[in-house]
Amino acid sequence: MAEYRAPLADLQFALNDIADLHAIPDSNGATPELVEQVLTEAGRFASDVLAPLNQSGDLSGARIENGVVRVPDGFADAYGRFVDGGWNAVCGPTAWGGQGLPWVVSTALSEIWQSSNMSLANCMMLTQGAVELLAHHGTDAQKRAYLPKLISGEWSGTMNLTEPHAGSDLGRLQTRAERANGAWKLRGQKIFITFGDHDMCDNIVHLVLGRLPDAPAGVRGISLFLVSKRDVLEDGSLGAHNDVRVNSLEHKLGQMGSPTCVLMYGDEHGARAELVGEPHGGLKTMFTMMNHARLNVGIQGVAIAERAFQQALEYARTRVQGSPIEEPRADAVEIIRHPDVRRMIMDMKAKTEAARALAIVTAEALDLARAHPDPGVRERSALRAELLVPVVKGWGTDRGVDVASTAIQVHGGMGYIEETGAAQHYRDARILPIYEGTNGIQALDMLRRKLHLGDGEPFRELVSDIQAVATQLADSPGEDLPAIGRHLATAAAATGEAGTWLTGKFWDDPRAAAAGATPFLELLGFTTGGWTMGRAAIRAAERIRSGETDPFLGTKIQTARYFAEMHLPTAAALAGPIRAAGNTVDAAAAA
Amino acid sequence: MAEYRAPLADLQFALNDIADLHAIPDSNGATPELVEQVLTEAGRFASDVLAPLNQSGDLSGARIENGVVRVPDGFADAYGRFVDGGWNAVCGPTAWGGQGLPWVVSTALSEIWQSSNMSLANCMMLTQGAVELLAHHGTDAQKRAYLPKLISGEWSGTMNLTEPHAGSDLGRLQTRAERANGAWKLRGQKIFITFGDHDMCDNIVHLVLGRLPDAPAGVRGISLFLVSKRDVLEDGSLGAHNDVRVNSLEHKLGQMGSPTCVLMYGDEHGARAELVGEPHGGLKTMFTMMNHARLNVGIQGVAIAERAFQQALEYARTRVQGSPIEEPRADAVEIIRHPDVRRMIMDMKAKTEAARALAIVTAEALDLARAHPDPGVRERSALRAELLVPVVKGWGTDRGVDVASTAIQVHGGMGYIEETGAAQHYRDARILPIYEGTNGIQALDMLRRKLHLGDGEPFRELVSDIQAVATQLADSPGEDLPAIGRHLATAAAATGEAGTWLTGKFWDDPRAAAAGATPFLELLGFTTGGWTMGRAAIRAAERIRSGETDPFLGTKIQTARYFAEMHLPTAAALAGPIRAAGNTVDAAAAA
Repeated sequence: MAEYRAPLADLQFALNDIADLHAIPDSNGATPELVEQVLTEAGRFASDVLAPLNQSGDLSGARIENGVVRVPDGFADAYGRFVDGGWNAVCGPTAWGGQGLPWVVSTALSEIWQSSNMSLANCMMLTQGAVELLAHHGTDAQKRAYLPKLISGEWSGTMNLTEPHAGSDLGRLQTRAERANGAWKLRGQKIFITFGDHDMCDNIVHLVLGRLPDAPAGVRGISLFLVSKRDVLEDGSLGAHNDVRVNSLEHKLGQMGSPTCVLMYGDEHGARAELVGEPHGGLKTMFTMMNHARLNVGIQGVAIAERAFQQALEYARTRVQGSPIEEPRADAVEIIRHPDVRRMIMDMKAKTEAARALAIVTAEALDLARAHPDPGVRERSALRAELLVPVVKGWGTDRGVDVASTAIQVHGGMGYIEETGAAQHYRDARILPIYEGTNGIQALDMLRRKLHLGDGEPFRELVSDIQAVATQLADSPGEDLPAIGRHLATAAAATGEAGTWLTGKFWDDPRAAAAGATPFLELLGFTTGGWTMGRAAIRAAERIRSGETDPFLGTKIQTARYFAEMHLPTAAALAGPIRAAGNTVDAAAAA
Repeated sequence: MAEYRAPLADLQFALNDIADLHAIPDSNGATPELVEQVLTEAGRFASDVLAPLNQSGDLSGARIENGVVRVPDGFADAYGRFVDGGWNAVCGPTAWGGQGLPWVVSTALSEIWQSSNMSLANCMMLTQGAVELLAHHGTDAQKRAYLPKLISGEWSGTMNLTEPHAGSDLGRLQTRAERANGAWKLRGQKIFITFGDHDMCDNIVHLVLGRLPDAPAGVRGISLFLVSKRDVLEDGSLGAHNDVRVNSLEHKLGQMGSPTCVLMYGDEHGARAELVGEPHGGLKTMFTMMNHARLNVGIQGVAIAERAFQQALEYARTRVQGSPIEEPRADAVEIIRHPDVRRMIMDMKAKTEAARALAIVTAEALDLARAHPDPGVRERSALRAELLVPVVKGWGTDRGVDVASTAIQVHGGMGYIEETGAAQHYRDARILPIYEGTNGIQALDMLRRKLHLGDGEPFRELVSDIQAVATQLADSPGEDLPAIGRHLATAAAATGEAGTWLTGKFWDDPRAAAAGATPFLELLGFTTGGWTMGRAAIRAAERIRSGETDPFLGTKIQTARYFAEMHLPTAAALAGPIRAAGNTVDAAAAA
């Protein structure tokens, strides 16, 4: 497996040139200079400590021994160093020991952790979700008891939603709480619980969806509970074990180092549980962190794409095979010199950078929604984030799978051999379009909710912003930027028309509209990816005009042009399929 | 893992309604009636004997014990029953014990074997290649010694091309023969040798590329050798073991039941070898069977797509989750009733059927090239097959990976769990775009050789045939066929223009042309897929008009329409990317 080096230059560019880190309010001192240092340090830690365990963790995998989950060798030590280095606390609220850095920084850091070791980084990602949930919805006592240790990383967190008959459809879940001696006792089975048990921390804080005794049926009767693996005593020390145990681990396609648990709550006497948030309000409570959770999974898509890209680039630069097409009698060359291999490398690079920029821009919207002094900006930014999150999750994770597959192809036969390392990325990536809401669910979220937000104004505003960038590109000097602008204008027009059509169709014929939802999300993904790459090209051209000579800038323009010329025409052509999708799916698929 | 049932109705339709089995000359009695019986029997054997071993073979995998390869439990027995049932001999030449059935039948049968158990079927596929090679290039003595047992399946065959530094670039291979006591002794290491050793047969016939002592450098100095694992004595019985041994097995992403061997030739005293064909003519000899080998791998793409489709369809029909979008308060339904899931199922079905039809049509061209009484038809058919083979291999195997990935998505979280079975197809499929010439090599073969055949006339004739089908569709009554015809006409026009442009560009600027080769193969794949589906729709409509009521026919028209409306617009839009690909790949990828 190739070494991992954090893409610091591109992360910095996304933060400062595409987004505007400097202008993010209430950032707890996250100046561009500080963030550069933080990312550099993070990159070093990821390369030195996390990345070397990625392949060995895949090989040995998490396992269960005497009812306890053991993570792969080295994970616990690396996790301990992560915690000791203060990395877990970078983004938690300052009131409880976190550094409160903004979402854009958390996004950049997440990518680095996920690229270097996705199986291990899953644990930190889930803890971050638990922190956020408790920070928003916990009582003061709950915050006091759990937040400091979750933020430091001494304890980890889990999210417990799925049951065997309740996956995408949470309304069917059956876990139940009963009142006993003034406390809640929880009973039920939860599946697909990532890091549901492990031996890296003294305690695990489970956030669990279940039903109160008087709960109405369906999604309106779901409450959120906290179940601590061990009792937390008054003085903060840990007491007895709770009645929750890991029943088994799943045998998965990938993410072998990340234990995916079946958890049994209350098999003996009921698991001691605390209610978090309002009774029957659990789904709403859980969904307040959905944007961040989905953004984080989208970042996993970027992260695996970056890792697979680095793996393929290293191979393409060193593997010697075949004469150049223009000189068939010359000696064999490094395969990156062959145009078809170059195209694959460019394709991986362009998609990865577009998805990264889109994630950072979405995180910036979350930051502005959180802390901008102007309430109008806050509201518009919140809506922008709502609109973009399913794109980052859906399109970003599809690109993760896509790029990981191309990385195998670059390797030829060696890509199919596990020792090479490319195959692991392909296996690891394949869960990303599924968990935290399948990409089909993301597409339906766009169709049913996001397109209709604010009477469609946020969607129209996004399309109009993209058109403005396309116009600015088209009016720029040279060949590259106008070429990007032309393709972006076409894609934006197709996106606007398709979105408007789908919004209306949803009321007339929701089944036909739903059949077109996934192609629409794909169109929106490529168009917004083209938008961020177009913005990148504009900034790079400005910096070149101002006299900068960093070759990164010229490469960025070429990469943006590649993305626009190679992917925006086919994306724009999805406008037809989006409308046509309903024509045949009901008629024939039943056969 | 879902059960496998051979898609007999669609295979029959492809053989008789899209191709014309009845009109194939010199078919050794392969009437449509006989072929129907054969396929039905084959389907039963595949379902009952081969398919049940697919998942267990994946779990246990092939392994090496004391220098001998052991196939998974049950494989040897199933292989024995395959041989005893005469299945191995269905397609060999009649002079040596085969039944000599035509390529279209072999194609249909191959799909069934590969769908039911690709790891095991690899062995038969390689033996078939060895049979064909020896039948064309062996001496009478070689034919007598090896063909009957290879055709019956008592012995198996292997192809030995790759060495560590000679993969796509065979000119660099180093295996060498020396003359000793009037015989050739071979020394060298070969990697990626499928079924290079195993315990299902008494003997293995290795066909090995190497160099004679006086060989010129590069591809013009390669000869083909036969190395029998055991000496074949005068009376046909087996003698001493030859100096070839298996060094190790690769740890692969998939195809676990198919041993991928590192073979060491001549480590002790040199492996006794016979020359096959002309000295230094080995590559040419090997390439005479390339069309069939590449067609067979394309069929593997169809086969894994069919298997993954069946797996996903079964799950979608039985998994209950979520209310219908048009009735949000109704009970949960089988997920196939959700439009986005239906779209995925239709997508898998349409791509699989298009790729199957394209493979059958290509096999028909091989049959006509072999045996048509009119030499003009023979020549045109041979050129048509030359043109289509890289499309079947490249586009067909890309669809295999694509459909296998969608099958995982249909399963949601369960798709990531190995027990379900969907993940195996995704892993098994991923080698197909790589072996037997990577899909990039297929695209370059199209660019450098196939587009230029006969001064481009075969390519123009193909496009013109597609346009004629599009016109016939456009002039048909109703809504469905004209809709298909419009999209097909657009895609055919884009294909014709792009092909002509690429042909010229190749001489002016081969690097820029090569950068567009892969998108062109994709365009050609979707367009020829749309062509076969369009022909299918025309035939189905004719049969409906003539009074037939089989619902298969109406579904076929809907499936063809889905394919045309959902995939031809984006395919046609590849015309721009094909031309643009050269703009940036040389400029930026080096960064």
